Amino acid sequence: MPMVYWSPTVCTPAGHWRSQREEFPVWLLHQLLSIIHTPWRMSLLRGLLGMELIGISVRPFLDFQERLTLLDSALILDVPLGVISRIEKMGGATSRGENSYGLDITCKDMRNLRFALKQEGHSRRDMFEILTRHAFPLAHSLPIFAFLNEEKFNVDGWMVYNPVEEYRRQGLPNHHWRITFINKCYELCDTYPSLLVVPYRASDEDLRRVATFRSRNRIPVLSWIHPENKTVIVRCSQPLVGMSGKRNKDDEKYLDVIRETNRQISKLTIYDARPNVNAVANKATGGGYESDDAYHNAELFFLDIHNIHVMRESLKKVKDIVYPNVEESHWLSSLESTHWLEHIKLVLTGAIQVADKVSSGKSSVLVHCSDGWDRTAQLTSLAMLMLDSFYRSIEGFEILVQKEWISFGHKFASRIGHGDKNHADADRSPIFLQFIDCVWQMSKQFPTAFEFNEQFLITILDHLYSCRFGTFLYNCESARERQKVTERTVSLWSLINSNKDRFKNPFYTKEINRVLYPVASMRHLELWVNYYIRWNPRIKQQQPNPVEQRYLELLALRDEYIKRLEELQLANSAKLSDPSTSPSSPSQMMPHVQTHF
Amino acid sequence: MPMVYWSPTVCTPAGHWRSQREEFPVWLLHQLLSIIHTPWRMSLLRGLLGMELIGISVRPFLDFQERLTLLDSALILDVPLGVISRIEKMGGATSRGENSYGLDITCKDMRNLRFALKQEGHSRRDMFEILTRHAFPLAHSLPIFAFLNEEKFNVDGWMVYNPVEEYRRQGLPNHHWRITFINKCYELCDTYPSLLVVPYRASDEDLRRVATFRSRNRIPVLSWIHPENKTVIVRCSQPLVGMSGKRNKDDEKYLDVIRETNRQISKLTIYDARPNVNAVANKATGGGYESDDAYHNAELFFLDIHNIHVMRESLKKVKDIVYPNVEESHWLSSLESTHWLEHIKLVLTGAIQVADKVSSGKSSVLVHCSDGWDRTAQLTSLAMLMLDSFYRSIEGFEILVQKEWISFGHKFASRIGHGDKNHADADRSPIFLQFIDCVWQMSKQFPTAFEFNEQFLITILDHLYSCRFGTFLYNCESARERQKVTERTVSLWSLINSNKDRFKNPFYTKEINRVLYPVASMRHLELWVNYYIRWNPRIKQQQPNPVEQRYLELLALRDEYIKRLEELQLANSAKLSDPSTSPSSPSQMMPHVQTHF
Repeated sequence: MPMVYWSPTVCTPAGHWRSQREEFPVWLLHQLLSIIHTPWRMSLLRGLLGMELIGISVRPFLDFQERLTLLDSALILDVPLGVISRIEKMGGATSRGENSYGLDITCKDMRNLRFALKQEGHSRRDMFEILTRHAFPLAHSLPIFAFLNEEKFNVDGWMVYNPVEEYRRQGLPNHHWRITFINKCYELCDTYPSLLVVPYRASDEDLRRVATFRSRNRIPVLSWIHPENKTVIVRCSQPLVGMSGKRNKDDEKYLDVIRETNRQISKLTIYDARPNVNAVANKATGGGYESDDAYHNAELFFLDIHNIHVMRESLKKVKDIVYPNVEESHWLSSLESTHWLEHIKLVLTGAIQVADKVSSGKSSVLVHCSDGWDRTAQLTSLAMLMLDSFYRSIEGFEILVQKEWISFGHKFASRIGHGDKNHADADRSPIFLQFIDCVWQMSKQFPTAFEFNEQFLITILDHLYSCRFGTFLYNCESARERQKVTERTVSLWSLINSNKDRFKNPFYTKEINRVLYPVASMRHLELWVNYYIRWNPRIKQQQPNPVEQRYLELLALRDEYIKRLEELQLANSAKLSDPSTSPSSPSQMMPHVQTHF
Repeated sequence: MPMVYWSPTVCTPAGHWRSQREEFPVWLLHQLLSIIHTPWRMSLLRGLLGMELIGISVRPFLDFQERLTLLDSALILDVPLGVISRIEKMGGATSRGENSYGLDITCKDMRNLRFALKQEGHSRRDMFEILTRHAFPLAHSLPIFAFLNEEKFNVDGWMVYNPVEEYRRQGLPNHHWRITFINKCYELCDTYPSLLVVPYRASDEDLRRVATFRSRNRIPVLSWIHPENKTVIVRCSQPLVGMSGKRNKDDEKYLDVIRETNRQISKLTIYDARPNVNAVANKATGGGYESDDAYHNAELFFLDIHNIHVMRESLKKVKDIVYPNVEESHWLSSLESTHWLEHIKLVLTGAIQVADKVSSGKSSVLVHCSDGWDRTAQLTSLAMLMLDSFYRSIEGFEILVQKEWISFGHKFASRIGHGDKNHADADRSPIFLQFIDCVWQMSKQFPTAFEFNEQFLITILDHLYSCRFGTFLYNCESARERQKVTERTVSLWSLINSNKDRFKNPFYTKEINRVLYPVASMRHLELWVNYYIRWNPRIKQQQPNPVEQRYLELLALRDEYIKRLEELQLANSAKLSDPSTSPSSPSQMMPHVQTHF
């Protein structure tokens, strides 16, 4: 059992909650119970914050260095109801010890919260029931909070992604690739977006026949095309080969048509994200991979990335070593034994191979795993991020997520379990988190290449769970359309784009056409401490980053100088109107240094 | 045996050295042999560089990403003769394989170099002899290169450290502390500097009596005094307690006199750097530690830092995992098993405790280990670096090294083995390197707190071995004086201070009175990849740091604006001389942002 970490201590005999410094009346507890009904935040905790969190017992966990900074400052717990994965009563009537009776709340964001409660009365039962109902609305026929949320923003994040525009940006349609509406009502593939890009030479009838041979009808469609060499990244699910080694002429021909969209290529490269043995094992359930015999003009490579279950267990081990206590004496070997960074390494290595193949112009690439909505989304989106600097801007990244993850049916509802009480559901897995972790690793290695900062990535992850926005709800576009998500909920991008400055990396230097190859070796990968260990007060928060501070000061100074120069020039020219002595406009002076603020 | 890493391949039958692209005539080999005689660089390698290093076989070690950047650029090996630790002939007459016959050169800076040579003739024997003679001049009655070096610099680094000035900066002498010249001719303690700071109330006679009870007469003397609370850091060697538990009234009284230099203090804190058991074991050879019985007004704590032999073996293990191949599959646990970061952690933790005790004003601190020249120097200098921002400037750091390490007799000659052929000498140990590593860890955690950059630290380490400068030669001040080192050699600080810009951290923000407490936990300590793994082409060199680049561009832009503003003001006032419209001087506009360039 994890140790008590944050624990409001039990009420006094007088019916008061006791903190280390003050007592709070019991009405507060009831007030918070009533607050929970409406908002997305877990006001159980938040409601109390105005008057300091009750009875935080952090002292025993602090070093002398942290004493000064933490003990005297308010500690804030901000827990959206959506982040709750599990609520358990702890301690029975016979339990002893001051903090052993209460509630244990497991969160999806690496936290466990424990609240020690008064045993008298039924306050715990009430709290448990109300919390359970609102944390898991699906089980109680209640709406997810995003449908109740009436926040207003001055920009509409739902407008960020328009597939036609995004494909047009890529130069599509062109002579070889066409946009098809064959999936307009999701009748070809119910987990794919309505709009798809396919080879010009493949007819709608061809697509329907190929769909019969691909798991869940997820046929190969274009994700990205190289602006110069015109090689492409194509994504799909595994072929339905099965134990008997079935073949499908239409599928084979279709892959050849994809290859032929680029004349110079003799072989199409297929990256199967799975380990070889897993791909073989999938034959038992009707799946499999493209054999050399059937696909003459293709080369297949396995990328050895493990499945959702392995990733889930790996992240659990990470949690074990960082929360509530950080393993210190064998930190490095403990971290290694979680295999988390090793998985990150394999995902990045796979994406680098995809990007390198396409960037070199040697071959187009087809990527799939089993169903093509987990590892495939990781690989295509990371490769696109490496290849296309547009996706490294804030809006570009939002589009990338909307396109490769949301529209192509990464099963957010199943992987996260929004509003669902089955915390042990085997469908849950941190695949999207792993992708964001890979992006963070890239941003560490290329600190000037991304318009967004770490806070942007953390905010995305926070709202992956929060249920405050509709962005990550449901498993696919067709379900989202049925639920009218874009009409009835707010987009996460509304929050972000209405206050972009908070999420900007001041060091960003836009570079068109630069392909980023991160180094995917263990010596260059780091545990994302600011995300995974952020709840631990022993981890020093380097906020704000002093280097960033210095840079921002200098930017402000530059702006001040520009203003002064302009004033001075104005004064000068107004008085004399002598063009020969007036310098050029300050903003034109050194154009190679860009302004991002 | 380590793998061949850089290897010029054997001559062709026509008597030519063969590279992957070109052939070089044999006369080059002879030319290089003659060049070796004079300069400090190992021109064996350097002489060939003008025409590309012969036959570098790096291809098999490269990823596809590194292919492009490395294979086509010149690879430079720059090996000072002083860095050579060991030269071995490899392969006999019977050895097979193209690269198995030649020379294997072990360096003190984590490198091994192997050169495959032609078996015919006696070129190897000649090379071996000439190299050995010049790499190990002590064994051949030859002078160390620093005494031959005739470089000239426009500043004299020997002027950087003046102990009287440094103590005056600290406010010394004062009512409680006096400067004594009792050791002017090194007759009190031959490994201490001539100038010492001792309590005003201790007479020279007292000092002489205390010296009899301290290992190698290294009596407690002041290293640093807190400018406000006047607590001090005092350093010394262990007391000569021995098996019988000897006591010395003069020593006991002397420590009490130190305590009483500050009225508020009831106990003097003694930090014994060693593990408890080692301190006990030292009694067998006449040493030991201050017992509670004898020293009533003192509290003793052990800091658990291991001795020079443990550190040497630990660094050897680091070398094993990074050179010539970097351990990848179990990088984290391999790194852990070297214990290097754990040792770093213990040294930093000890220094933090010293700094915290003094900063809080709770007690003065006495630091010792066995002889007081290894761990003691680490602890006092790191604590001083945490406490006193002056030492975080370039000149301040030079003074810190001159004072706590060079003048107080860290045995550089024995620890490094300058010019000495006994590579297995048990006196060798990377204690100073470990200190510099700790400084680097601090600079990573406080990126704006140090005036110097990483290159400064690496340069110091390179010349710790190079023998180009006199700075790190000999074991103590008395030996240096006998050899007239300051007259006959150049100081490393001459090189650095004559080109300071190269070593400046652009993010430096001077903060007076800020005490730095680094976090000494495994999660915050990193292997110093840019130092320990810099010879490995697989390690991506992030030079130049793009964030630093951006910052420097912005600084240049600011300077440009200031210049334009001044020109414009000048033009304006020259024409109109109307003071009411002329803005204030641009350099006064935002004084909180400092200019460091």
